[in-house]
Amino acid sequence: MASRYPVPELQTFITTALASCGVPSDAAATTATRMLDADLRGVGGHGILRLPGYVNRVRAGGYNLRPDIRVVRQTPVSALVDGDNGLGQVVMTEAARIAIDKATANGLAWVGVRGSNHAGAGGVYAAMAPGHDLIGIYLAIGNANHMPPWGGLDMLLSTNPIAVAIPADEEPPLVLDMATTQVSYGRVKVAADRHETMPEGWMVDRRGSPLTDPTRSNEGFLVPIGGYKGYGLNLVIGALAGLLNGAALGSEVVDFNQDFETPTNTGHALIVVRPDLFQPLEEFKAAMDRHIRELKSSTPMPGQPPIRVPGDQTPQRIADMRQHGIPIADGTVRRLADLAGELSIADHPFAGHSGTS
Amino acid sequence: MASRYPVPELQTFITTALASCGVPSDAAATTATRMLDADLRGVGGHGILRLPGYVNRVRAGGYNLRPDIRVVRQTPVSALVDGDNGLGQVVMTEAARIAIDKATANGLAWVGVRGSNHAGAGGVYAAMAPGHDLIGIYLAIGNANHMPPWGGLDMLLSTNPIAVAIPADEEPPLVLDMATTQVSYGRVKVAADRHETMPEGWMVDRRGSPLTDPTRSNEGFLVPIGGYKGYGLNLVIGALAGLLNGAALGSEVVDFNQDFETPTNTGHALIVVRPDLFQPLEEFKAAMDRHIRELKSSTPMPGQPPIRVPGDQTPQRIADMRQHGIPIADGTVRRLADLAGELSIADHPFAGHSGTS
Repeated sequence: MASRYPVPELQTFITTALASCGVPSDAAATTATRMLDADLRGVGGHGILRLPGYVNRVRAGGYNLRPDIRVVRQTPVSALVDGDNGLGQVVMTEAARIAIDKATANGLAWVGVRGSNHAGAGGVYAAMAPGHDLIGIYLAIGNANHMPPWGGLDMLLSTNPIAVAIPADEEPPLVLDMATTQVSYGRVKVAADRHETMPEGWMVDRRGSPLTDPTRSNEGFLVPIGGYKGYGLNLVIGALAGLLNGAALGSEVVDFNQDFETPTNTGHALIVVRPDLFQPLEEFKAAMDRHIRELKSSTPMPGQPPIRVPGDQTPQRIADMRQHGIPIADGTVRRLADLAGELSIADHPFAGHSGTS
Repeated sequence: MASRYPVPELQTFITTALASCGVPSDAAATTATRMLDADLRGVGGHGILRLPGYVNRVRAGGYNLRPDIRVVRQTPVSALVDGDNGLGQVVMTEAARIAIDKATANGLAWVGVRGSNHAGAGGVYAAMAPGHDLIGIYLAIGNANHMPPWGGLDMLLSTNPIAVAIPADEEPPLVLDMATTQVSYGRVKVAADRHETMPEGWMVDRRGSPLTDPTRSNEGFLVPIGGYKGYGLNLVIGALAGLLNGAALGSEVVDFNQDFETPTNTGHALIVVRPDLFQPLEEFKAAMDRHIRELKSSTPMPGQPPIRVPGDQTPQRIADMRQHGIPIADGTVRRLADLAGELSIADHPFAGHSGTS
């Protein structure tokens, strides 16, 4: 069960909650915006659901609340950003700005980030590029190891997501946002919140048998897409988003669900490219429209719905949620109401612990 | 069953076969080298197995044998290469040289290619980068559509591979080379050659049921890794390697297994980055060694072999094949012997139609 809450009320609540723990108001507002961007894009596992965890980390002193986010190396087409252990959403917002500025000026940019923290949904950052007529590719280290190397038992790998956003003309941008595991750990959390059983193939236990109870997720690990292929993809994302930037990888990764104090030294990378390096922008965008339309008008399997393209329903979803509110599962609502109580926030949208409907 | 053939004899045979059909000797030699690079890397589905198909296309006039391979747009960090319908291996070898030169000079390079043809194993091109202390990321459009959009029936998508190569210090480079389908069509061909049954999950028929007979591969389509995730990854690779460069995509893709005459307008992309944009090279390479060793020394599941990392066995495999020859399946040997007969090549390694052992 879920209820819907207006976006501005949620924005105010998140900002107030973070600010009440000492986060400067501009950083709190940026974090709130990026978290709700995730909810609005349909990636609820990286949205307001995460607030209690972030607040725990803030209160435990795990973040630097006054970080000096700075470029420590750069060329006209690259930068290494040190997030100085700031809130991940704030660090990545700054890194994305730098990448977009450099790519706009010089055609191409690769911005690496270290010293960051969990930044939410990768699609949020990749999708900033199409608004500037740019292509964005985002890579990140997940913030807890839930997967061993292929055929192994030691949990050395995270979900290491990739997100790619490509502008079109009249069609919405093509936006892929995926973990290299069959599902993200966020989806496991949502399933637990909804008291759902997970399908086989999402997780296995330490003997390789299917694990379907999301409340037992700490007894097993996530499964990579395509078996050893997803393992390989996970490794290269880990090397490019983490190791290349001097961020944590492998046994260095801090489980931010368990440890709220140790700096996570999270790594991200954002690669941005200007399509007109290769052809006139308008021709490229028109070709994207034609390609997307060819896919969407192609024949579905008997009894199946029309063909979809990643991101094609996002503008409608965002418009719907801005009009009717963001749906939040009841388990999450209760935790947010509890959080409001803990933080002595009297005026909040979750009074009664059960939402507005 | 397979027999082994010395690399120099295969190099001479491929070069002779292509030259006998009118391919200039330097282009023939480059093509032979890249094809055998694929065999040496263990990607037999893109190696000498492909020679009869290439010769068919050469003899049918499907290639431009005297192409003007040229840069049509460029910046200090990018180039669009038009292959002028030359042999794919020759076009990609030139594109890789340009990308490596630009990345060496300016730190980063994104080289797009159009007007190319099937270039073999992506890992061959990505793996050129670590030899120059660079990271390489290769994307390509496959040369035949074997997959519909997720949930659909119309074969609009190819296997669209990605290959990534990352240098280490004492450890071999990490080299991932994968199709975004559960298997490449090349592996289906190898299974057919070896008279093997395919496991369920490689292909499905037009009703979505498993297809396990590789000789019936034209009655079905390949399955993407991770279901809709692999479909999304396939789309973004298609857009970046194909559409962005003005190369063929979707219904424009020419099935080079069926049509030997129509120019394929194949697209590739190679992104190359210098690790020292982000940290000193030696520190990066040492960190890669530590990461690879941590993975490889981690605990396997009970009864499983030691943990592997993509590319870790490649140097040994190459050394073994250079010493003892490249193994070629008997079905392929017979086709190569037939090809030698057709081309009136008297002195070839496949006399007797059954190899050397």
